[in-house]
Amino acid sequence: MKYLIYTIVVVSSCYMYSQDLNNHSQFINEIYDEALSNGESYERLDYLSNQIGGRLSGSINYERSVKWGKEELNLIGLDSVWLQPVMTPKWIRGAPEYAHIESTPGNTISVPIAALGGSISTPSIGISANVVEVKSFDELASIGKDSISGKIVFFNRRMDPTIINTFQAYSGSVNQRTQGAAKAAKFGAVGVIVRSMTTTLDDYPHTGSMYYEGLTLNERIPAAAISVNGAELLSSMLSLNPNIKFFFRQNSKNFPDVLSYNVIGQIDGSKKANEIILVGGHLDSWDLGDGSHDDGAGIVQSMEVLRILKVLNYKPKRTIRVVLFANEENGLRGANKYAELAKINKESHFFALESDAGGFTPRAFSFDTTESEFNSLKIYESLFKQYGIDNFIMDGSGADIGPLKDNKVILAGFRPDPQRYFDYHHAASDTFDKINKRELELGAAAMTALVYLIDNYKL
Amino acid sequence: MKYLIYTIVVVSSCYMYSQDLNNHSQFINEIYDEALSNGESYERLDYLSNQIGGRLSGSINYERSVKWGKEELNLIGLDSVWLQPVMTPKWIRGAPEYAHIESTPGNTISVPIAALGGSISTPSIGISANVVEVKSFDELASIGKDSISGKIVFFNRRMDPTIINTFQAYSGSVNQRTQGAAKAAKFGAVGVIVRSMTTTLDDYPHTGSMYYEGLTLNERIPAAAISVNGAELLSSMLSLNPNIKFFFRQNSKNFPDVLSYNVIGQIDGSKKANEIILVGGHLDSWDLGDGSHDDGAGIVQSMEVLRILKVLNYKPKRTIRVVLFANEENGLRGANKYAELAKINKESHFFALESDAGGFTPRAFSFDTTESEFNSLKIYESLFKQYGIDNFIMDGSGADIGPLKDNKVILAGFRPDPQRYFDYHHAASDTFDKINKRELELGAAAMTALVYLIDNYKL
Repeated sequence: MKYLIYTIVVVSSCYMYSQDLNNHSQFINEIYDEALSNGESYERLDYLSNQIGGRLSGSINYERSVKWGKEELNLIGLDSVWLQPVMTPKWIRGAPEYAHIESTPGNTISVPIAALGGSISTPSIGISANVVEVKSFDELASIGKDSISGKIVFFNRRMDPTIINTFQAYSGSVNQRTQGAAKAAKFGAVGVIVRSMTTTLDDYPHTGSMYYEGLTLNERIPAAAISVNGAELLSSMLSLNPNIKFFFRQNSKNFPDVLSYNVIGQIDGSKKANEIILVGGHLDSWDLGDGSHDDGAGIVQSMEVLRILKVLNYKPKRTIRVVLFANEENGLRGANKYAELAKINKESHFFALESDAGGFTPRAFSFDTTESEFNSLKIYESLFKQYGIDNFIMDGSGADIGPLKDNKVILAGFRPDPQRYFDYHHAASDTFDKINKRELELGAAAMTALVYLIDNYKL
Repeated sequence: MKYLIYTIVVVSSCYMYSQDLNNHSQFINEIYDEALSNGESYERLDYLSNQIGGRLSGSINYERSVKWGKEELNLIGLDSVWLQPVMTPKWIRGAPEYAHIESTPGNTISVPIAALGGSISTPSIGISANVVEVKSFDELASIGKDSISGKIVFFNRRMDPTIINTFQAYSGSVNQRTQGAAKAAKFGAVGVIVRSMTTTLDDYPHTGSMYYEGLTLNERIPAAAISVNGAELLSSMLSLNPNIKFFFRQNSKNFPDVLSYNVIGQIDGSKKANEIILVGGHLDSWDLGDGSHDDGAGIVQSMEVLRILKVLNYKPKRTIRVVLFANEENGLRGANKYAELAKINKESHFFALESDAGGFTPRAFSFDTTESEFNSLKIYESLFKQYGIDNFIMDGSGADIGPLKDNKVILAGFRPDPQRYFDYHHAASDTFDKINKRELELGAAAMTALVYLIDNYKL
């Protein structure tokens, strides 16, 4: 008898469980149909990319994108839309950079460079010096101050092409860009040139943030990214003649912080309004391209999540909030301010999802949570298989939602295919023509489906 | 004691099995490292696409690509390389097509069209007629001869955007292109205009094959693809005024068959030389673009499989053969001839793999074989996971290897991500700039890994 009751309980709970997944599956199908038939991500991104364009923190374009973001969220018809003030850095590139390799006196070949974000300017007449090529900080240290002093340090470690996940290859090389100038300055270098962080062979310098760490103002040296083809040329010329000179000139400048905003909107929850489900990306971008993949895609997809739920007449149980974060690229001030205020206001975040890996074909979701929570969420993985998402994995989430991390919130990252991302990342080639509409809208659909499932999770 | 022996046998066979997979895994790692560090697919495709270009059967460009293919295979250093003669159709597009919509007499808007492959020409002065828009052959039949006679039939069923696998959406619409003219002619239509088979909204007509089925020469009517934007315009104008006229002119022509070739090369097997493992794609392409994705990608990837195995000093047990098939697009003559001769010569094909779905990021392999064979092969699936291939599925393989099907051979298809393929398929937009090097080389690596595993399967 005991067994019989046990069996009935198990069977009926299995039945209810599969009924539940079945209902979810039907609604997810509606989400995908809406995204693929009437999706607005692509059109929205067309405006952001082509009518506004690159939108670095502190720029007039960033202000324009704040205004646009607020208006777009209002058009979706959310329950509330607001701006959250935050002070952000203001760094400008100034007049276009110039660089050349001088193989013999007067004999020069120009190469494409771009100042790294946060870097100081060169003197107005530029810097000309011999070059020390290194692949790592260890190599830099082993060469030592005597051989480095007065020279330009050229960091030339490439992103490892044999690593399948390009983000992992990026992690393995990016410290040259972020810390290279600070390290090289300590050995008396007068400037730093960094091989662009990209998986392709191109003529675009790929910029990105750099930090002077503890250096005082007069200890700082200018730093620029050089295109990969330029780096290959410089390296091969150095191997022929270590005494060639490199010249570069840039006009970048840091200004005092300026007032800026996170853009926020939400649909209020009907049952557990105090539990927030956040979806977002970052509204700022580098100045070189129009930031279509980084992170225009994430912005329009995050907005689209709420539009799709609205248009399908879905009444969320929890509060579903979209956040367009300020200043991810060179400061993370928007993210830190958001988390700080959430704590002060005792807001409870149940879940946060970020899209900041490009608008490519969806592959996976990553979850930054406990193992038991992850195993519990993994029951939903099968619902995504027919839509081309094969994996729920435990891994990091996103830079903007990272500061929310505590022992309660479930953090997640949208993981599109990573093969093309670093072709365009932080370069003038990150433009709208690199966006495929189907891939972009599929990403929005996947994110909407996950947000919907989480809204019905552990009610 | 019995149990103990049993346990020992199971444990040791599991151990051997996992050792085996472990060895395979190491060699597959070498394959990927070679493809991603020194891969030659992209450079090879650059030549085929940009120095040769579109290569329709019967064209001088197809002959040039045969010569190139043979030379490239010789450079790889195979044990033998040869040409297999086959008679192929020769159809030419002739002078550029022209079409316009005439909303009121003399008031015209031109729209982009392209003759379908195999279609007859219009009269030299073109055809001007009223238009009947239909979505299906059933609708055509229900409208009937009286209302269709003397008119142009406009097939306007789109590829369903809500189907995630675009190849499935293509299958659901392509009969309008292949059979539309034959069906419409029976109802007295004077011409056929077919909405392009594509998932994007563009101004490119996407051509493709069409067949007149049983129609005699004088029953045949000309057929052209219209761009999707052109189709949307025509449809909306028809909804405003059903009496508008459509004009089109094309100069296509069928010639007698010409002598052509499959290009074949192989590395002889060291243990089971009489068992052939085939890898291939089709060397011909449509004339509008340069055929980079369809199927230049498959050609260079197939060549690369053998190059990688050679350069890694791998000695195959079975014979590994690459076949660059002639005339897939409008006849399948190369494939049929190859299968016919294989039968006559009593060649035994153990396995055949085709790449003809574009050079996009790898997602899966499909297998056309028995369920028990598939289940046996599925043990290798896990080896691909770290390289982004999540699925072995049972499904079709490829058009060129299809004629080899019997109750022995295992057929397989390489399945890259399908989201972008039909943006470019059979259109002037299928060009080399749509190829991403990493995605292409990853595909070649995946194919090489599978061929390697199969070479070691059931020895």
